[in-house]
Amino acid sequence: EDLKKQYTFKSSDPYSSDPERHPVLHANSLKPFTAEPPPEILSDSYITPTAFFFKRNHLPVPQVDPDSYRLHVEGLPRGVLTLSLEELKTRFPKHTITATLQCAGNRRSEMNKAKQVKGLNWGVGAIGNATWSGAKLRDVLLAAGYGPDVAQWARHVQFEGLDKEITGSAYGASVPINKAISEEGDVLLAYEMNGEDIPADHGFPIRVVVPGVVGARSVKWLGKIVVSAEESSSHWQQKDYKGFSPGIDWDTVDYKSAPAIQELPVQSAITTPREGSVIDRSEEMLAAKGYAWSGGGREVIRVDVSLDGGKTWNVAKLKSSDKEGDQTSPPLGRAWAWKLWEITVPLPPEAQELELICKAVDNSYNTQPDTFGPIWNVRGLLGNAWHRVKVKINEDDDEE
Amino acid sequence: EDLKKQYTFKSSDPYSSDPERHPVLHANSLKPFTAEPPPEILSDSYITPTAFFFKRNHLPVPQVDPDSYRLHVEGLPRGVLTLSLEELKTRFPKHTITATLQCAGNRRSEMNKAKQVKGLNWGVGAIGNATWSGAKLRDVLLAAGYGPDVAQWARHVQFEGLDKEITGSAYGASVPINKAISEEGDVLLAYEMNGEDIPADHGFPIRVVVPGVVGARSVKWLGKIVVSAEESSSHWQQKDYKGFSPGIDWDTVDYKSAPAIQELPVQSAITTPREGSVIDRSEEMLAAKGYAWSGGGREVIRVDVSLDGGKTWNVAKLKSSDKEGDQTSPPLGRAWAWKLWEITVPLPPEAQELELICKAVDNSYNTQPDTFGPIWNVRGLLGNAWHRVKVKINEDDDEE
Ligand SMILES: [Mo]
Ligand SMILES: [Mo]
Repeated sequence: EDLKKQYTFKSSDPYSSDPERHPVLHANSLKPFTAEPPPEILSDSYITPTAFFFKRNHLPVPQVDPDSYRLHVEGLPRGVLTLSLEELKTRFPKHTITATLQCAGNRRSEMNKAKQVKGLNWGVGAIGNATWSGAKLRDVLLAAGYGPDVAQWARHVQFEGLDKEITGSAYGASVPINKAISEEGDVLLAYEMNGEDIPADHGFPIRVVVPGVVGARSVKWLGKIVVSAEESSSHWQQKDYKGFSPGIDWDTVDYKSAPAIQELPVQSAITTPREGSVIDRSEEMLAAKGYAWSGGGREVIRVDVSLDGGKTWNVAKLKSSDKEGDQTSPPLGRAWAWKLWEITVPLPPEAQELELICKAVDNSYNTQPDTFGPIWNVRGLLGNAWHRVKVKINEDDDEE
Repeated sequence: EDLKKQYTFKSSDPYSSDPERHPVLHANSLKPFTAEPPPEILSDSYITPTAFFFKRNHLPVPQVDPDSYRLHVEGLPRGVLTLSLEELKTRFPKHTITATLQCAGNRRSEMNKAKQVKGLNWGVGAIGNATWSGAKLRDVLLAAGYGPDVAQWARHVQFEGLDKEITGSAYGASVPINKAISEEGDVLLAYEMNGEDIPADHGFPIRVVVPGVVGARSVKWLGKIVVSAEESSSHWQQKDYKGFSPGIDWDTVDYKSAPAIQELPVQSAITTPREGSVIDRSEEMLAAKGYAWSGGGREVIRVDVSLDGGKTWNVAKLKSSDKEGDQTSPPLGRAWAWKLWEITVPLPPEAQELELICKAVDNSYNTQPDTFGPIWNVRGLLGNAWHRVKVKINEDDDEE
């Protein structure tokens, strides 16, 4: 009967044509679909496999026919530029970047423990690292007539998705014009993710990828680009995805008082071991892994790991790819991709429980705050306090 | 007899021609001269008066004759460009920026309390905000022959001061080429500070001002500029002014393992009241003031203030000038100047002692860490944990 009900419901359900998802993903909501992979998967490979890349849809997944798809570039004095998928692929050079995208709500579950917030209860998996290929937004804007005259008044580039609410209003966001037009900004109109057509859940056929910036601005199923003096007027730009003081609650919040989140702060997390793991004393060593990333193209230069709740610290080994010992640095200010880190340390002789902590430092020497309470905010965004994981040491494995 | 000794010593003392200093400055060392103003002075005016601007010399102040002064620009294929002070002032447009400079060691005294470090024991005053006027470094580099060919190999711009050690080696530093050549980088070859000739202690006749970057790179008494594939080989670029993990001490430190400090992390401090102040209960309100700033042109968007050691937080009022209510924002990514903040809050009814804390958030939503222990580093640099000030409430002012 339940199945029947679901079936009947489905026919009028705007989510009924959503794609299949990999069963290993942990869903935080079904409609819209939002899900993250188990944390260990994130540190298994430098590039997050597409199937395991976190999904944060805001609306039903639109079904887009690649042949009739058109991208509209508006707001420029020369009028609207309309591009087919084929034109996007052939008229502009293809660029590939490796970039990490992170949801502003990543690690909200930890902030929730400090005090309840409103939002999806993400663990540490609302982040992923992929290669993205496509046309540079800069090249398309120049082709559409962007020039010094436009630079006089243009301040933002707005993006509109093809995903729509019942009312017909689309998902939308914007980024500052500097980011969009800069050669070093590396904003792509991506048609490939990890070397294949971007799948339906990630924005087929075009997703704008804004590296170094909160995932919410990398609009999927991109339908329209508008060069403007104003930010996007969308709900997600104006009334969501902003940070507030821990002293501000839903009664006092004034969305006009804070800027829309763009660049994200420095972040890191432990992906293995998990909270509550038990380690045998006989193993003698503890191995931990995780990721570290910072917004704005800032490169992570160090990850410190503590086994004793922050009293003493060890320096983790950083990896810039899956190649053993790869510690290459991207060009300054264009470190869009995360680093994976790992560390193996002797088990402290006396301890029965360890509090593992990781914290990252970027090349502006910004660091993560110690605790969640003082960065708490009503929507539970921007959670980047130290990640803490407690593990137990099993003294006698014979007894097990 | 002491005076006599001092006099005899002076004649062979390279510091004997150092200029007079304002008596209100608190000196941390005399040779070289390093000093900071009382904290209250910092929040008295948006622009720090030149006489009260912190001084961090590394060597004796050189006496430079403005008529025979020459600036040498080297490393470019066209050969050396030599400019007199007059040429610098007349051949290039004059630009003015308001920029905060901060010593990497600001607030070291607080880090010292977590665990002893090596360095000058700065309070919160090794920071100041001034207007700087001069030629753009970019314009001078272009005039000297910088172009696309040079961009192929150039990675850094090195600066050499006219201040020299006994051995003849000069103070030196470098910044990345992107920062030096970018139109938005706003690096100046400044000949004026707060509308007057730069005084001897601040680099007369030319100081390179690198906004958004640690003070150590804003080389005073600038004698030479070298475009290079390499960073400056100076002690201060290679063996100082770098950050390390709290787990690293002088036995294990490897200076090659960390990048030279350039952009600084988000910072804030309370300038009034001071630690140990007594407030009368009858005043009913507590007024606090301070400064907040972030490196890399990131704008401070909020300062949170706590009276109870971080349990609850209030939002301070930010000031972008001395004009009442001025909350204007600089262009995105070019917020070189600090914001002053102030807050007036009711005295908590029961409390006998308050622990005031301030912490700032910049527009990348980076925040300050809670405590100094976990950002401790051997040289005591980059101290940007929450600033904490304890004050007492005097319950009965009749008894005083
Ligand atoms: Mo998000
Ligand atoms: Mo400094």
